[in-house]
Amino acid sequence: MRKLLIVGSVAFDAIETPFGKTDKILGGAAPYIALSASSFNIPSAVVSVVGDDFPKDYLEMLKKKDIDTSAIEIVQGGKTFFWSGKYHNDLNSRDTLDTQLNVLADFSPVVPDNYKDAEIVVLGNLNPLVQLSVLEQMVSKPKLAILDTMNFWMEDAFLADLKRVIAKVDVITINDEEARQLSGEYSLVKAARVISKMGPKYVVIKKGEHGALLFHEEEIFFAPALPLEEVFDPTGAGDTFAGGFAGYLAKTGNVSFESMKNAIIHASNLASFCVEKFGTERMENLSREEIQKRLKQFKQLTQFEIELS
Amino acid sequence: MRKLLIVGSVAFDAIETPFGKTDKILGGAAPYIALSASSFNIPSAVVSVVGDDFPKDYLEMLKKKDIDTSAIEIVQGGKTFFWSGKYHNDLNSRDTLDTQLNVLADFSPVVPDNYKDAEIVVLGNLNPLVQLSVLEQMVSKPKLAILDTMNFWMEDAFLADLKRVIAKVDVITINDEEARQLSGEYSLVKAARVISKMGPKYVVIKKGEHGALLFHEEEIFFAPALPLEEVFDPTGAGDTFAGGFAGYLAKTGNVSFESMKNAIIHASNLASFCVEKFGTERMENLSREEIQKRLKQFKQLTQFEIELS
Repeated sequence: MRKLLIVGSVAFDAIETPFGKTDKILGGAAPYIALSASSFNIPSAVVSVVGDDFPKDYLEMLKKKDIDTSAIEIVQGGKTFFWSGKYHNDLNSRDTLDTQLNVLADFSPVVPDNYKDAEIVVLGNLNPLVQLSVLEQMVSKPKLAILDTMNFWMEDAFLADLKRVIAKVDVITINDEEARQLSGEYSLVKAARVISKMGPKYVVIKKGEHGALLFHEEEIFFAPALPLEEVFDPTGAGDTFAGGFAGYLAKTGNVSFESMKNAIIHASNLASFCVEKFGTERMENLSREEIQKRLKQFKQLTQFEIELS
Repeated sequence: MRKLLIVGSVAFDAIETPFGKTDKILGGAAPYIALSASSFNIPSAVVSVVGDDFPKDYLEMLKKKDIDTSAIEIVQGGKTFFWSGKYHNDLNSRDTLDTQLNVLADFSPVVPDNYKDAEIVVLGNLNPLVQLSVLEQMVSKPKLAILDTMNFWMEDAFLADLKRVIAKVDVITINDEEARQLSGEYSLVKAARVISKMGPKYVVIKKGEHGALLFHEEEIFFAPALPLEEVFDPTGAGDTFAGGFAGYLAKTGNVSFESMKNAIIHASNLASFCVEKFGTERMENLSREEIQKRLKQFKQLTQFEIELS
C-alpha cells in the first residue's frame, strides 16, 4: 500500500447529453481520479483549488471516501472553475459551451508535507507548469509519476512546457487523437514509440469506447472498454481510468509491466461505471460487489484458451 | 475436421493506397476467405464465376493450397468481375473508382455434389439471392452457416432478400456501421440483439483496427486487432477474418461459443497478416511459424491475471 497524491482541477460542470442535462454539478479531473482510486482503499490526497462558492457537502463526500481534501485550497471571494459542454448524439464528441477558469487561473499548488514523499503521483489534466510545480515539491522522486494531459496543451503556446513535464514522468495517459498530434505519427504503435522517447517509459493510449493500449518498450497490452447498452454521460471517463490505474498500482505497490496490465483492466472496469450516470454520481455509489462482478465480465470478454505449439 | 464450402466473388482488383498502387491483381471475397481458411489444412471448395480472361496461375495457386476450384465456373467469352478503389490517407475509408460486374451479374452458383453435405458454409458478400441459392442446394442443413454481407444489400431494393438469407444462417459477420444501419441501433450491444432476432444465434461485429465483437445471447467476447506499425492495404481483411473464423471451426468441428472465442482470435490473427501487403500476396506466403508467433503476441496483448474474490 502506497500513498497516492493527486493534483487536478475541481470544478462545477454543466453537462448536456442526448439523455438530459444537469445544472452545476461536481466536476473536474481530481474528483473523478480520487473517487476511482478510492475504490482500492488506499491513502490519497488531492491538491486543488476552489472558490468559496464550492459546497462543503462535496468535500464531505470525498472525505467519507478517505480522500484527504485538506490541500484543496478554498479561495475566499473566489469562484470555482466552471465548465459547460454538450455531447453530440453519438456521445463520441462534444462542444464546449462555456469555460470560466476563475480561481484555477492563479492556481499555485501546495503539496501537503505528509504527501511530499508519496510513492504514486497522478498529475491530472492542468497547465503543465502547475504539474511541474507539484513534481518539484516532492522530497523524493516518486516511484511512479503518471501524467494526464490533453490537446489544448499541445498548442504552440504551451508545448514546450508540456514537453518539460512529459520528460519527467514515468507514465503518460493520452487519447488516440492527442497521441497522433503530439507524435506526428498516425500509427499508434509508432506514436507510442515517439512519445516514449520524450520521457515516459510507459505510454497509455486511451481510445474511449475502443479500449486502451499500454506500451512499454516493444511490449503492448490492450484492455477493451466493456460493451455497454447505453453510455449516459462520458464526462470523466478518462480521469476515472487514470484514477483506477493509479489506485491499483498504489494498492499493490508493484509498478512492473505485468502489474500495469492488471491496472489498465481495473481502469477500464471503473471507467465503465463512470459513464452510466451524470457526473460523479455512479462513482460515489459503487460497491465492491459491483466492481468484482464486472471484473468477471472483463475476464469473460477477453480470456481465451488457445494452446500454442 | 469438417468440409468447408465457400461461395463468394472472384475478381480483379486495382488498388491504390498511400503506399502505392496495383494493376489488376487477384481479388474478390472468395480467394481471401479460402486462403485464410486453408491455413487450417481443411478440405474446402469455392463456388464462384470468372471470365476466360482469368489467369490459370491464380487457380493453380489456390489448388496448391488444397482449395478445390472445380466449382469456379469459367465463362467463355466473359470478363471477370472488376473492382477498383482508392484508400484515403487514414486507410479507414476508401472511394470505389470503378465496378464492372461482368460475369458476376448473371452468376448462378452450382454447389458440387461432394460439397452438398459440407458441415461449414461461408456465404461471402454477394447478392443475397445467390447466397440463398447455395443454402437451398445443400442436401443437409449445415452444422454452421456463416453469412458475410455489406451495406449495399441493405438498400431498399435488396433488404427483403437480405433478411431472408439472414433468417437462415447461424452466424452473421458485419461491420459496425452496417450493424447500426441494419438494426437502427447505435449501441452495438443493442444492435447485436436486434440482428440476432432476425435469425443468427451468433453475431460478429467487425470494427477494423478496433477489433471484433462476438455476441451470443447475453454473452460477449472481444478480439482486438493486433496493433500494427503500418497497415499497407486493408483490402480483404474482413474476408480473411471470416475465412479464419470458418477455417478454425471446420478444423475443430466444435461450433460452441467457447470454440468461437478461439475462432475470432485466429480470425483477427490472420487478418493482421492480410493488411501487410497488397491483395492476397501476404496470405499466399504465410508460414505456420509466423501464424504461431503472432498468436503468441495476441496472448501477450490480451491475457491477464486478476484473481476474483
